[in-house]
Amino acid sequence: MLEFGGEALVLTHDMLVEGVHFLPEQDPADVAWKLVATNISDLASKGAEPVGVLLGYMLGYMLGKDDARFLEGLSEALNAYNVPLLGGDTVGGSGPQAMGLTAIGRATHRPVPSRSGAKAGDALWITGKVGAAMVGLEALRSGSGDSSAYRRPQARLSEGIALAPQVTAMMDVSDGLLLDAMRMADASGITFAIDSAAVPIATPEARRAEALRWGDDYELLFTLPYGTAPAVPATLIGQALARQNAPLLLDGKRLEAGDSPGFLHR
Amino acid sequence: MLEFGGEALVLTHDMLVEGVHFLPEQDPADVAWKLVATNISDLASKGAEPVGVLLGYMLGYMLGKDDARFLEGLSEALNAYNVPLLGGDTVGGSGPQAMGLTAIGRATHRPVPSRSGAKAGDALWITGKVGAAMVGLEALRSGSGDSSAYRRPQARLSEGIALAPQVTAMMDVSDGLLLDAMRMADASGITFAIDSAAVPIATPEARRAEALRWGDDYELLFTLPYGTAPAVPATLIGQALARQNAPLLLDGKRLEAGDSPGFLHR
Repeated sequence: MLEFGGEALVLTHDMLVEGVHFLPEQDPADVAWKLVATNISDLASKGAEPVGVLLGYMLGYMLGKDDARFLEGLSEALNAYNVPLLGGDTVGGSGPQAMGLTAIGRATHRPVPSRSGAKAGDALWITGKVGAAMVGLEALRSGSGDSSAYRRPQARLSEGIALAPQVTAMMDVSDGLLLDAMRMADASGITFAIDSAAVPIATPEARRAEALRWGDDYELLFTLPYGTAPAVPATLIGQALARQNAPLLLDGKRLEAGDSPGFLHR
Repeated sequence: MLEFGGEALVLTHDMLVEGVHFLPEQDPADVAWKLVATNISDLASKGAEPVGVLLGYMLGYMLGKDDARFLEGLSEALNAYNVPLLGGDTVGGSGPQAMGLTAIGRATHRPVPSRSGAKAGDALWITGKVGAAMVGLEALRSGSGDSSAYRRPQARLSEGIALAPQVTAMMDVSDGLLLDAMRMADASGITFAIDSAAVPIATPEARRAEALRWGDDYELLFTLPYGTAPAVPATLIGQALARQNAPLLLDGKRLEAGDSPGFLHR
């Protein structure tokens, strides 16, 4: 975040790497969409409206596929969020590929929401459902079912802007609800108590534990003072406590050693 | 360029790719330096002062080498230009590597210099000497001699800011003097007549033709109204003419077919 001429500029930069963040055989248009959505989601979590993006992209990044598909997907995503491509750099390259996007946004509310503002007593909320991208990835791999949640994630841009004046802390959930909630708890110096049954999931009930640990859904996780109702549809899933000896209590218990709260990349 | 909070924000994004923009065996600290210098040079050519950078970087990008060296070089370069690292993204990856940097600058003069403003009658100037990076690369490859011009190029930041109020057009020379002069001529709709003997070179006289076509020197190429002296040391190398049937006349002649004006990458 940068103060600039009396306004707050919010800057994000996210990269996608082949084999890490996307499958080598994926449609380049979907890869482009995801690159835009992940960055716009970062802006959303700060309540910022996008003003433009810069792209760093390797030409010919997938053998036998067309750069034109990447540019089509990029164009679709930029239109969906109404944000212009301001510039960037296109280079030659080969091998496993990486591409990056910088998104520039204008804060719509001061102070700009961060992940460090949650206070003991606050309520913990989340938009939408978790686990949708997990189901979508499985559909993509199996070739049957709806893979759109994985291929074309939606950044919660309008929700982030609507929530910014209300929240005490906010972030987008990219690496799994539990892992990202732990990060917010650590940044805020509190402990979250999460009621796992309260978390809305996009999966069958039997897969609830996985859904809480899977990422790529880009929902907004935020805290509000106790008793405040959110400006957009969301679900109350827990509360912030004075800091305990762990950042997270799930149904009253610490995660056990070996129980991963999420994944850094998949 | 972006209007923001009443100021003109100048944004650049440059990528470096292993094997294209740097040698696989190069010191990662030098790669980091070059990544910063190329972006700061873009700001310099717009007369903008840097306010921050965002980095996109793959961890472990060179087998057997230390990411710490990259971060050392990054820190050295950011200190040299007095610019903070605002954020970015670090990802896992393997294979030939790419990294990108976004630099954000504040325009110090309006209108912001561009490559499209040269007028017939203007004089064409360049800072410094060309061919220094070519000599530096050869020194690096041979293991003897001074390779610093290639490894640690200097962005002409203070010069760009001093020149911004004077110039009719300005750009940095990254891909070779002749090629970049052609680009400025095309963007401005004029033809440049360049006196090759007037161009300051960092090489022996026998290699003048190569020095005019080699890149990576990051000198500033700019036009001034005829009779105006530049605010910083520079050399008058030619003039802008009403558009002819070629963007560039070198010693009165068009480049012959097959005579490349420069290289896009090396």
